[in-house]
Amino acid sequence: MGSYNIAIVGVGAVGEEMLKVIDERHFPAKSVRVLARTPRTITVKNKQYLVEATTPESFTGVDIALFAGTEGEKGAAVRFAEEAITRGAVVVDNGADFRMRSDVPLVVPEVNASALDTHKGLIANPNCSTAQLVVALKPLHDAARVKRVIISTYQAVSGAGSAAVDELTAQNNAVAAKSEVVSSVFPQQIAYNVIPQIGGFDADGYSSEEMKLVHETRKILGDQSILVTPVVAARVPVNTGHSEAVYVELERPLSVSEAIALWNDFPGVQVWDSNDNPKRSYPTPLETAGSDDTYIGRIRKDLSNPNALVFWIVSDNLRKGAATNAVQIAEALVSRNLLRGK
Amino acid sequence: MGSYNIAIVGVGAVGEEMLKVIDERHFPAKSVRVLARTPRTITVKNKQYLVEATTPESFTGVDIALFAGTEGEKGAAVRFAEEAITRGAVVVDNGADFRMRSDVPLVVPEVNASALDTHKGLIANPNCSTAQLVVALKPLHDAARVKRVIISTYQAVSGAGSAAVDELTAQNNAVAAKSEVVSSVFPQQIAYNVIPQIGGFDADGYSSEEMKLVHETRKILGDQSILVTPVVAARVPVNTGHSEAVYVELERPLSVSEAIALWNDFPGVQVWDSNDNPKRSYPTPLETAGSDDTYIGRIRKDLSNPNALVFWIVSDNLRKGAATNAVQIAEALVSRNLLRGK
Repeated sequence: MGSYNIAIVGVGAVGEEMLKVIDERHFPAKSVRVLARTPRTITVKNKQYLVEATTPESFTGVDIALFAGTEGEKGAAVRFAEEAITRGAVVVDNGADFRMRSDVPLVVPEVNASALDTHKGLIANPNCSTAQLVVALKPLHDAARVKRVIISTYQAVSGAGSAAVDELTAQNNAVAAKSEVVSSVFPQQIAYNVIPQIGGFDADGYSSEEMKLVHETRKILGDQSILVTPVVAARVPVNTGHSEAVYVELERPLSVSEAIALWNDFPGVQVWDSNDNPKRSYPTPLETAGSDDTYIGRIRKDLSNPNALVFWIVSDNLRKGAATNAVQIAEALVSRNLLRGK
Repeated sequence: MGSYNIAIVGVGAVGEEMLKVIDERHFPAKSVRVLARTPRTITVKNKQYLVEATTPESFTGVDIALFAGTEGEKGAAVRFAEEAITRGAVVVDNGADFRMRSDVPLVVPEVNASALDTHKGLIANPNCSTAQLVVALKPLHDAARVKRVIISTYQAVSGAGSAAVDELTAQNNAVAAKSEVVSSVFPQQIAYNVIPQIGGFDADGYSSEEMKLVHETRKILGDQSILVTPVVAARVPVNTGHSEAVYVELERPLSVSEAIALWNDFPGVQVWDSNDNPKRSYPTPLETAGSDDTYIGRIRKDLSNPNALVFWIVSDNLRKGAATNAVQIAEALVSRNLLRGK
């Protein structure tokens, strides 16, 4: 029996994953209250949960409220975070609404847990594609300073919620049956396709997903001088697991074996690279889905810039990219004694 | 009735596409001889073709022999190109075996047709991922000199042949039926996955597909000083159409509208960009498959380097990436009077 009353707000793809992760990691929860727009009963990993409608009063007695708001959508935190904080909870929000606010720590615990120490009740969980990127960059940045990142992404449909997963399956089945393919979550068919758009476009033509990579990476690494070029953030017909092709320019050269050694020493990283591990030449989203770790492979020196490395990062977007990172923040709040009234 | 006897060698995914393209583009063929390892009859676009076994004598009387050898595999040209040339044919080889030989022109007609003028009987067709890249780069290079290219690819399975297309379909169906997924063409399941490997790895960890982007781009653009970083060449679960996320550093700044104007003036390019064309915000492989053109979208200035642009290129890998380009080379051989004995 744990000591903390937890609330999970939102039980789409990320909220369900949060329930699994709390259980798997044996988070010391005294109670888990599950809140959403529509009251109902859900079953996650053979456990039943009663889902109650979210109201301000739902947060009475709650120590930590994890808001599951997924990629892109205005999260429930906009409506309820203040109410939860007023009632004494610390809010960890997976939505994008508060991440760039200067009084809101944006945290990946392995990278910048100390940013939690000055929290004012609200803590932001980064976007899925940023979380795995900063985990990979942090040890390189500490060893050789990251000057520039040029990145393209291959993102799974579950980042757009469980309706998107259902849409991909339905489309693949429709193609097989030669029946009509219907697209409602995505702007066009995602089965057998790649869509180079995640979120809306700004005046410069960058998508919101691409700009999150720029701003969130700088904030989490605490270095506004890092240049980030998000070439394209693209959606691919994969259910779970975002992949990223990354070029990183450092202040001084790092060899492939030095980079591998740094990553092997870093929490939550697994190196799957033919240089290091002949059995696991590289990670793919399908093989690594369901894991809490960030996987790095295809690690090479750039062919022309001696200070640059290129590599491939894969992580489960619902796990390290969302639920796992949020629960790790909750764990860090406990271990750093940062819960309110405790 | 045309004037030229054509031979197509190999009738996999690319060879069949060559038969279609010759027909669609009304290539002035007097006869089309179809050659392959196994004699049989095939039907392509409602037309029957008798496939004969390839022998040296098959090339007697042939003016142009198009070898369809696909990505990765040792092409029939290794066995038969010399025999065909000896008998008076000009060979256009889609295989990778001869592309980097200094006495073999490597040609994308819109880019470097004049390289054909000194041919010695054998002409190489570039790799699919290079063809669309150099079409996009050429007008930028002429206007503002390309100094550096950083690229990641999203490549369709048909680049690995028609067995690969069948494998993706079979795997999607097996996933739907919850039955066993079998992988034989690819090293692991491609359905619902991304595989960051195309071809074998060299000592530096680069795949053969990645190194083709480096060497072929420089040869076709005729500039060995261009730096090319192939971050990752990846296979995605798409049947046809390769996509590329590209960062290009130029010697001087080009605005987005200048780049669009250059591309709009360039043969075989279609700009689908929200800046230029509100109905076609960007190209996807599914929408552009079956077209001979190269599609460019998501065109932006880089956020930190005023001399750099980022964009997204999509083209049908069996068309401009293989069959169409080979037939365009044949057309250029005709128009430039470069056939032997003619």
